[in-house]
Order: sequence, then C-alpha cells, then structure tokens
Amino acid sequence: MVEQFMQEAVQLAVENVRARRGGPFAALVVKDGNVVARGTNLVTSSNDPTAHAEVVAIRAACKSLNTFQLDGCDLYTTCEPCPMCLGAIYWARLRRVYYAGTREDAAAAGFDDDFIYEEIALPLGDRRIEMIPLLHDEAQRAFDTWKHLADRIRY
Amino acid sequence: MVEQFMQEAVQLAVENVRARRGGPFAALVVKDGNVVARGTNLVTSSNDPTAHAEVVAIRAACKSLNTFQLDGCDLYTTCEPCPMCLGAIYWARLRRVYYAGTREDAAAAGFDDDFIYEEIALPLGDRRIEMIPLLHDEAQRAFDTWKHLADRIRY
Repeated sequence: MVEQFMQEAVQLAVENVRARRGGPFAALVVKDGNVVARGTNLVTSSNDPTAHAEVVAIRAACKSLNTFQLDGCDLYTTCEPCPMCLGAIYWARLRRVYYAGTREDAAAAGFDDDFIYEEIALPLGDRRIEMIPLLHDEAQRAFDTWKHLADRIRY
Repeated sequence: MVEQFMQEAVQLAVENVRARRGGPFAALVVKDGNVVARGTNLVTSSNDPTAHAEVVAIRAACKSLNTFQLDGCDLYTTCEPCPMCLGAIYWARLRRVYYAGTREDAAAAGFDDDFIYEEIALPLGDRRIEMIPLLHDEAQRAFDTWKHLADRIRY
C-alpha cells in the first residue's frame, strides 16, 4: 500500500516535468488509506516560489478537509522535504512523512535544499541573506494584542 | 525609512489580530523604496497552515511582479521568520530581511517556531514527526526526467 502511494507520486513527478509545470517533485496527502490531495511542484508555471509539491498538497488537503491541521494524515513525497516544506509539515501537524529521494539527490539535480538546510543552522548574522533586527519592542504590541484576545484561535 | 516600513507592518499585525484573521504577524515586500506587497497571517481564517505573513507577502509580490524570484527585494517582518518562512525567503531569493520580534518572543506567545527550529536540526530518525525512507531509487526516475529536459526552467 505505501509503495503504491509512492509509485503514484513518482509518476506524478515525472509527468509534472514533461508537462513543463515545474520541478521533478510530487506529493500525496493520505488519510485512512485514501488520497486526500495531490500536489506537484508548480514554482515556475505559477510564479510562486512556495509552490513546492508538499506545500501544494498540504494546502489542497486543508481546503478539501476544511481545516488548518492535518492530524492523522500521512504525506508521501518523492523527495526529502526542504526546510520550507518541513516547516509546513510541522505547522499542518501531519502524522508521518514517507520520502523517496534525499536532499543530496536534490542537490545533485541542481536544487538548493541542502544549501538552505546549512543556512538555517547558522546564527542569523552569518547567513547569506542578511537578517537585520529592527524595532524589537514595537513587535510586542502585536503579541500583546494577541495575548489579550479572549477568543483567539491557536494554531 | 526602514523604521516606517516596520511600523506599518506592526500596525498591520495588530489589526490582523483584532479582525480575527489570524496570528499577530505581518510582512511587507519592498523594492526600490516602494511596497510591492503586504501579507498578514491568515492560517485560521483561510484554513491554510502555510499562510504565514511572509509566505502571503512573497506570493503576492511574485504575483504582482510576475516572477518567481524577488531579487533586489527586501522583506520587513514583525517577527523572525519560522523555518518554513525562512525557506520561502531563500527560494524567493530576497536580498535582505528586517525582523522585529524573535523566535523566543513567538514561543512566549504560544507559537511553535522555536520547537520547529529544534526539530529541523535533528537527524531524520529522531524527529517528533516520523520520517520514513521509501523506494529511494524510484525517485531517480523523476530526477532523470528533469536532467534530460533540455528546456527546463531552473529556480
């Protein structure tokens, strides 16, 4: 069963490349043995750098299930998620992730996944993209408003 | 100038909470001194766990500029980006990030940013969300298709 889902994902990734929709990646969200949503990499065809297969699949699954949390759902992805997608997986609270390729495979094919993993581990001041602290105390106004909102919806 | 952009972002974050649209976060994409796009956290109101302020702003900026890369653009965000948003910033190739709050401030307000940073640094087998390798060699079919596509668009 798990192999079948992954094979379907790989086939989607192959077709995605052939159709010139984007990179060689696809993902499925599966719940109780059923595919809830499919996603492929649509970065270049949709002008959206966040449209990685996992993000596309997670957004579609949430839309389909009318929720912002995918408890009890598994993700099948043709490649180890990049940091952006791994973050999305945690925010969506998926149960489990099956992956086929690795970040090294992605790097060998010309993708930045491995580089971004390295950058994320660095202190903010040492990163390739400059990160500048500004008006730290001002941000507390937003957090305070949040903390005092009685009916806030946590996520 | 930079302070003004951040003050606008914080005000957007405060209004976002009051309007019950989502968490206390907002972001601006700025190019050549002009605001290209604004984003606020819309996770709970749009049922999209990826709808963090930075991702929303990046997607809107790309749509507005008709591109999947934001070279020469700066991001103003009311809080240090979470790993998902930091990944999005790298994929979008922003030039610079100004941030007000920190991941510790976010944690104090009940958000998982700091926890996800810790998880990302762990070996795949030690993470809270189970990550299971599956059909590694099968994924090469997708990468091979990509490598052999003469007119592939890199991103």
